[in-house]
Amino acid sequence: MVIEGVSPAVDEGRFPAKRVAGDTVLVEADVFADGHDVLSAVVLHRHQSESTAAERRMTPLVNDRWRAELRVEQLGFYFFTVEAWVDHFLTWHRDLQKREKSDYAVQLQIGLEMIRAATSRAKGRDRKRLAHFVEVLEGDDELEDKVHDVKSDELLDLMWRYSDRTHATRLDCEYAIEVDRPKAAFSAWYELFPRSFGTLRDVEAQLPGIANMGFDVLYLPPIHPIGKTFRKGRNNVMTAGPNDVGSPWAIGSDEGGHTSIHPKLGTLEDFRRLIEAAKGNGLEIAIDIAFQSSPDHPYVSKHDEWFLKRPDGTIQYAENPPKKYQDIYPFHFESEAWRDLWNELRDVFLFWVKQGVRIFRVDNPHTKPLLFWQWVIGELKRDHPDLIFLSEAFTRPKIMYWLAKAGFTQSYTYFAWRNTKYELTAYFSEITKPPVSDFFRPNAWPNTPDILTEYLQYGGRPAFVVRLILAATLCSNYGIYGPAFERMMHEGREPGSEEYRDSEKYEVKQWPPAEDDLSALISSVNRVRRENPALQQNAMLKFHTTSNDEILCYSKAAGDNVIVAVVNVDPHNTQSAWLDLDLTALQVDSNRPFQVHELLTGARYTWHGGRNYVQLNPHVVPAHIFRIRRKVRSERDFEYFL
Amino acid sequence: MVIEGVSPAVDEGRFPAKRVAGDTVLVEADVFADGHDVLSAVVLHRHQSESTAAERRMTPLVNDRWRAELRVEQLGFYFFTVEAWVDHFLTWHRDLQKREKSDYAVQLQIGLEMIRAATSRAKGRDRKRLAHFVEVLEGDDELEDKVHDVKSDELLDLMWRYSDRTHATRLDCEYAIEVDRPKAAFSAWYELFPRSFGTLRDVEAQLPGIANMGFDVLYLPPIHPIGKTFRKGRNNVMTAGPNDVGSPWAIGSDEGGHTSIHPKLGTLEDFRRLIEAAKGNGLEIAIDIAFQSSPDHPYVSKHDEWFLKRPDGTIQYAENPPKKYQDIYPFHFESEAWRDLWNELRDVFLFWVKQGVRIFRVDNPHTKPLLFWQWVIGELKRDHPDLIFLSEAFTRPKIMYWLAKAGFTQSYTYFAWRNTKYELTAYFSEITKPPVSDFFRPNAWPNTPDILTEYLQYGGRPAFVVRLILAATLCSNYGIYGPAFERMMHEGREPGSEEYRDSEKYEVKQWPPAEDDLSALISSVNRVRRENPALQQNAMLKFHTTSNDEILCYSKAAGDNVIVAVVNVDPHNTQSAWLDLDLTALQVDSNRPFQVHELLTGARYTWHGGRNYVQLNPHVVPAHIFRIRRKVRSERDFEYFL
Repeated sequence: MVIEGVSPAVDEGRFPAKRVAGDTVLVEADVFADGHDVLSAVVLHRHQSESTAAERRMTPLVNDRWRAELRVEQLGFYFFTVEAWVDHFLTWHRDLQKREKSDYAVQLQIGLEMIRAATSRAKGRDRKRLAHFVEVLEGDDELEDKVHDVKSDELLDLMWRYSDRTHATRLDCEYAIEVDRPKAAFSAWYELFPRSFGTLRDVEAQLPGIANMGFDVLYLPPIHPIGKTFRKGRNNVMTAGPNDVGSPWAIGSDEGGHTSIHPKLGTLEDFRRLIEAAKGNGLEIAIDIAFQSSPDHPYVSKHDEWFLKRPDGTIQYAENPPKKYQDIYPFHFESEAWRDLWNELRDVFLFWVKQGVRIFRVDNPHTKPLLFWQWVIGELKRDHPDLIFLSEAFTRPKIMYWLAKAGFTQSYTYFAWRNTKYELTAYFSEITKPPVSDFFRPNAWPNTPDILTEYLQYGGRPAFVVRLILAATLCSNYGIYGPAFERMMHEGREPGSEEYRDSEKYEVKQWPPAEDDLSALISSVNRVRRENPALQQNAMLKFHTTSNDEILCYSKAAGDNVIVAVVNVDPHNTQSAWLDLDLTALQVDSNRPFQVHELLTGARYTWHGGRNYVQLNPHVVPAHIFRIRRKVRSERDFEYFL
Repeated sequence: MVIEGVSPAVDEGRFPAKRVAGDTVLVEADVFADGHDVLSAVVLHRHQSESTAAERRMTPLVNDRWRAELRVEQLGFYFFTVEAWVDHFLTWHRDLQKREKSDYAVQLQIGLEMIRAATSRAKGRDRKRLAHFVEVLEGDDELEDKVHDVKSDELLDLMWRYSDRTHATRLDCEYAIEVDRPKAAFSAWYELFPRSFGTLRDVEAQLPGIANMGFDVLYLPPIHPIGKTFRKGRNNVMTAGPNDVGSPWAIGSDEGGHTSIHPKLGTLEDFRRLIEAAKGNGLEIAIDIAFQSSPDHPYVSKHDEWFLKRPDGTIQYAENPPKKYQDIYPFHFESEAWRDLWNELRDVFLFWVKQGVRIFRVDNPHTKPLLFWQWVIGELKRDHPDLIFLSEAFTRPKIMYWLAKAGFTQSYTYFAWRNTKYELTAYFSEITKPPVSDFFRPNAWPNTPDILTEYLQYGGRPAFVVRLILAATLCSNYGIYGPAFERMMHEGREPGSEEYRDSEKYEVKQWPPAEDDLSALISSVNRVRRENPALQQNAMLKFHTTSNDEILCYSKAAGDNVIVAVVNVDPHNTQSAWLDLDLTALQVDSNRPFQVHELLTGARYTWHGGRNYVQLNPHVVPAHIFRIRRKVRSERDFEYFL
């Protein structure tokens, strides 16, 4: 008996697969044995809170692949394994109907023995019903009648439930599924620097506007006291002027460290108030966790054993020779005192959890030990399975993936640098399908305070519209560095730089309301996302053929909700194309006209077949988001087409 | 430190990867860690006969993939694992050259400490040389001079060899590579029924002809006594006439069983003589192992506990309801007496090994327990690593693959039923690339005594030529059921049947020399295979685009030996096509004309670029086998292009 190729299984089960509460998990395995006997297989599954496993029968698909569906409702870990056996009764039953009459006598004898044995394993009513079949077979009826009697579905069902599993094979490991809350899979993030709006109390005034635009996570860069030694000036110059406020990521001063609030922003109480006010607006506050210290951080004086020393006794600052970042001391995670350090850093998270934070954006996790993240996220989620961790790693792909395997709930992506049709198709095909999608949940950002791409710098308003729509429709999790994005800030620090000129990272900005900004479009796009379940997941993303390399067309479907997006990725020129929609994959009857509804403009069209012409002037409307009206047979049927 | 994605690794290392003696194995792994430090990695490897592992340094390719090359020379198992570490010295060394002069003093101090530590780990001359570098750094030279001195390649090499591996990460498992003799990867099989030629002594007379055609394995169906009870007649009819000889697969009678020779074929001594005579002709004898008994087999009376009983006490015959095969009793591998049975069956192999057999064709292994094969092949190869086992399973793909993983050296394939360009391209792309090619070695047969395909029945001589050339050039292992193939026997038993009419399985045939048979072509094709290393492996198989769905074009390359085959798979009509040879993949300079040499006809052509026209009349020549003249930079460079 061979059971292999289990899915979902990340790296053969070394890491949990990720799902959210309410998901139906398709558990599959290759199940086969020598010979031609009928097999039976079950998935044994339990939530971490249960000590005994429940069973669900698997059914064969094609090519020795078997499947069962599990619905996961509770947060935390589910565990499953697979058991299978050669089912002698089902084999006998299948063959009996094909046999010659001369074989009936001996064959009914074989069957009778199996039913008798099952009867002794059964209890209660089942036992009585099985005993009834024993009586029938022991009786004086004609052999043909008995063969007819054992055709019974009831008997098949009973015999399956009391199948002889003495020689069953069970996998010797359990596979894990980690279930997060739904926001892990569907969220819209808005980032702002609180100090540009005054204090945390002043930020409260921004909440209704952000909520009205349709966001559900408000992410704040570090809100802690900022170091003074080697403080960077505006535009990241080496020496700060007396009025320069410093970078929020140079954490720690005589005013406190990772569990303190910058005095100019307010108090812990103000912070808790902000969390409550956000809740009232349907928003959650996410904060930044950046594990590094300024030279002025209390850790430096109290725990210099947590930092690496150079031979001259000074603490090693961050560097990428010849560049020096003397305003930043990295922690020395492998120091002799690593246990104390690791515990302290876990306690930083716990401190903010106690204040009511449930979402953390983690700064540069790839420069800290991978094992630290695996440990600390495991520790934290054990008691708080509703926590969400976003990994801010823009490093080599395997490390980004490993961080996700180690426990990060969501991950930043290369989206910002994927601009062409080819790049977007290849990248999103990779990250939205297994094996990657089983552990890596992308969160697509068109901009961040660190990233103002060339595309946005030189593409004008159309570039911002295109990148917003791509992020929000390709990826169920997305976010923007909001004030700058809404106002289409596009000036780089110098040619070739992806830094903003006069970056908000090093100074306080003013963000007065702007005429003709993108807020109305953003509101529309977020409304479309909320109203269409198809856009709340990535698994059903499919790219369709178009006749123009500047025009991207893709669909997402969930049940009978089908969205087709068509985007002109050229922000400068009008482009037109013939679309070749794969109507079979979309389960649309190609012999009948169907209605499409453009969701941003409200326009309605009737299309005939999969071949349709589109023309997109980026200065008018660079993209369409269509909903297709059609009924599917069932969500499950649908999936086979993708 | 993460080490994952090791290759070659079959099912994450659960099964050995297969190679042959003389192969260079590319061992690869993803190796990465947090941060930007320089890493070092080694492969630790040993043959099963060695207790300590040797090391080979790995080098990074791209995207965190690392590689080392291992040459495997001995038969049996090699084991390897991977160890990697953050290399602080190499990191320091890389950064030193980029630093500002103001950092030299403290940095040289850091380096000096590492060199001192390495000196204490080193011995002999290495220690002296390292001590020399310590002296230099301790001396009074200018800092710039010292920075220049440590650029030394000698120092880098020494420091690598005595690197601080205290915190190295080593995978906690060993991966296995099973090394067979070269014939496992490159062989040409010829099958004949000895009784049609008289006795085993008479078969000796056939050896020179078979050897002259270029075969190196002569495979004989079972040569044991044949049962009489329920013996099948000619064309597999249920009742045999008095002169019917029976099927060789109904093994066993009062004359003996699996370790006896059919008296009409001769004696054991004759068999050993045949083996020697074959050797003299450069041929090896392969015999069939079919684990089943006729009702007359001595096992049935002596060991009825090895068979399954029905409730009426009779032994269960083979069946596929409503079909009954009452001339065949399967063994009951799960009986109470399974240990004795398994040992007995192993001893059957050992008996023939003692007679000098080194190649076994195993009949229907998929109807016996998979674990039995894993056990018995392991037992046999432990003392006889030169054994070759060919799996005759034409069942579901996953079971065929599992048998290969369990230890079968070669496997029959679906080749016989893959006739179109699409089918051949898809199937051979699957079975000649990892993961499949790491454990599954295909052996392609255009026909067998059980398989006379429709293509051969109705395609005339061109069909035989096409299928021969495809088998012999797509697949480094191939074979034919010879007398019938040479003479292009093509009459099926009845319409829709793949059985031969008047099949040799049930009667003695005469095979007089035939005018105009295929033996001359077969000799040519086998000569081409022997003369061209490209055809002695499958790893470098590549399909090229052609403009006609009836014309298949593919190449194989080994070093500077490049073969391109062009085949018209339509046996009825002349077909023509434009070929689009991927000259980059073939490392042929597309700017210069190049010579191609047709190896069957000796014709020579000069081609210009990758686009070339071919026309193939199946009644004249349905296929070309070209050798391309070109020099490659090196075999290793070449592989990146595929």
